[in-house]
Amino acid sequence: MQNYYAVIMAGGSGTRLWPLSRHHLPKQALQLIGERTMLQHAVDRLLPILPVERVFIVTAAEYVPLLSAQVPDIPPENFIMEPAARGTAGAIGLAAVYLQQRDPEAVMAVLTADHFIRSVEVFRQVLQVAYHLATQGHIVTLGICPSYPATGFGYIRRGDRIAQVDGFDVYAVEAFVEKPDARRAAEFVASGLYSWNSGMFVWQVPRILREFAQHMPDVHALLQRIAAALGTPDAVQVLQTVWPQVRKETIDYGIMEKARGVVVIPVDIGWSDIGDWEALYGVHMTCMDGNVILGNHLGIATKGCLIRGGDKLIVTVGLENTIVVDTEDVLLICARDRAQDVKAVVEQLQANGMTNLL
Amino acid sequence: MQNYYAVIMAGGSGTRLWPLSRHHLPKQALQLIGERTMLQHAVDRLLPILPVERVFIVTAAEYVPLLSAQVPDIPPENFIMEPAARGTAGAIGLAAVYLQQRDPEAVMAVLTADHFIRSVEVFRQVLQVAYHLATQGHIVTLGICPSYPATGFGYIRRGDRIAQVDGFDVYAVEAFVEKPDARRAAEFVASGLYSWNSGMFVWQVPRILREFAQHMPDVHALLQRIAAALGTPDAVQVLQTVWPQVRKETIDYGIMEKARGVVVIPVDIGWSDIGDWEALYGVHMTCMDGNVILGNHLGIATKGCLIRGGDKLIVTVGLENTIVVDTEDVLLICARDRAQDVKAVVEQLQANGMTNLL
Repeated sequence: MQNYYAVIMAGGSGTRLWPLSRHHLPKQALQLIGERTMLQHAVDRLLPILPVERVFIVTAAEYVPLLSAQVPDIPPENFIMEPAARGTAGAIGLAAVYLQQRDPEAVMAVLTADHFIRSVEVFRQVLQVAYHLATQGHIVTLGICPSYPATGFGYIRRGDRIAQVDGFDVYAVEAFVEKPDARRAAEFVASGLYSWNSGMFVWQVPRILREFAQHMPDVHALLQRIAAALGTPDAVQVLQTVWPQVRKETIDYGIMEKARGVVVIPVDIGWSDIGDWEALYGVHMTCMDGNVILGNHLGIATKGCLIRGGDKLIVTVGLENTIVVDTEDVLLICARDRAQDVKAVVEQLQANGMTNLL
Repeated sequence: MQNYYAVIMAGGSGTRLWPLSRHHLPKQALQLIGERTMLQHAVDRLLPILPVERVFIVTAAEYVPLLSAQVPDIPPENFIMEPAARGTAGAIGLAAVYLQQRDPEAVMAVLTADHFIRSVEVFRQVLQVAYHLATQGHIVTLGICPSYPATGFGYIRRGDRIAQVDGFDVYAVEAFVEKPDARRAAEFVASGLYSWNSGMFVWQVPRILREFAQHMPDVHALLQRIAAALGTPDAVQVLQTVWPQVRKETIDYGIMEKARGVVVIPVDIGWSDIGDWEALYGVHMTCMDGNVILGNHLGIATKGCLIRGGDKLIVTVGLENTIVVDTEDVLLICARDRAQDVKAVVEQLQANGMTNLL
């Protein structure tokens, strides 16, 4: 349809994939799976169903040169620059007013630049269904069928099934639930009523702006000031002035938990947030010994390892369930079950003033 | 005494310390413990009891430039070059004829360039005792009190105690025993009658040459030809011609097992052959978590590791009992209990033609 648009959220940094991800080289700009970067994958997924002119990217100003070079077909004016990170609510609201100016009837999909989706065809099908439902006035979320009791994601509890469209069941959302502890996560998964909140949403722009007006009126007022200046010579200055006043909030807490008429389509699309090295290991097909090898490697009795290097020969003997990431200036060796602790490493380097390595 | 000499055997290559040891940079030339190389440690140990002019080094011609630069005080003529490796019997025989030419009454200690000795003072004391006994006509071996049932060393079984000199017990040797299997090694250690054969010997040069004449007459004849040419313009050419005919043999099998009147002084001098990375780990004093760190390291939940790198930051998370050696062109990560397998790595690289890394 002529008024379908996609907004790819590409503002994060992904410190838990350090030392590959850096301040100047965020996760969405990395070749984590195959030869294409995560942002390129995110755009590639859309192009069979959307023209490139209707794909927008929200990111920080500092990342625009890097990211625009990776997706040169995206028109420069489709890069929406956040002056500073204010959480997903602000970023989505900003994108909504940009789209409103472009097309007051825009139907807007909010997607992510740094997540992996294995079943791209299914993703495209469900996205089409979601656009269709959004056109009918729904706020649509894509819920990920949970594959384990994750404690790192928010969950969506479904209520009654309200429709079935092209083979996808559509449910009323009963509740958005913040990240649970392990016990509750296990209950959620066992119940069969919960999906992971993937952060992918589809809605009409006028509808989401009405939700902002109702549930985040302060932010809505600021967005209105930004919207009024768009297309005028004052646009940049107004944005810079107004933006710091936008309160930091997630779209989940700010809008989704309060909005009515939200629906969820639970889908199994082979989704991963690649939140850390263990998650990246998980999305790769492994060879017989369960190793994922990227680089020049010789292994003896090496099992369940992710080895990522460059030209230097990496030899492993008797290494098991370990992540090895060798870069120009840092070597990381991390037990797979400690992959979360990479964040603590980055914090420690920050505290030690070793910012040149971040 | 004026006729005490030391011959340091420095011809080996030490592939199990790869990737630090290389063809062009053998183990004895490496700074494995502290700032001094293994050869420098070996010479340092002797200088309080011997003048540098009486310290000789047997090595391959290709290593002479490297090694002589490390011990510049050793006179160039004290480097004895093996044209090719023919085992310890040939190397020791060659050194004996060089010493014979220098001093027909020489008392010769055979020592090693690539072993670690923690208790240097005790080593010096026992070496003095050994020189003394050798002057009386004994063939003296230093036996290492075994600290575990090693299967990688030969053993010496002692017989009757024949003397006590300066607090050291001296025993007749009953047998030299080749590397045992684990069961026999355990029996040896439990019996209290066995020492490790460290490859350190002391004897009069005329005595050892008589042993060669008796037990290795073919080698003795070749050594005589080399000896006859020493100091003449033909010396190098004769050595090059004769040497390939010297049969490859260890001094243990060729001489020691057959000689009579051999004595052993069992000593506890904190000896290690540093045969592999695990052995190198073992000789280091470790910090609280049992880590040995050489380089720029940040560890979280890291225990029992040996980390050796350069300027590059090495970060380890949840790593235990592992060797990490980062060099310019190779990174090795090896479970400590698989340290022996580094030899297999080197063999595999050799088979793959990757000789630039060896």
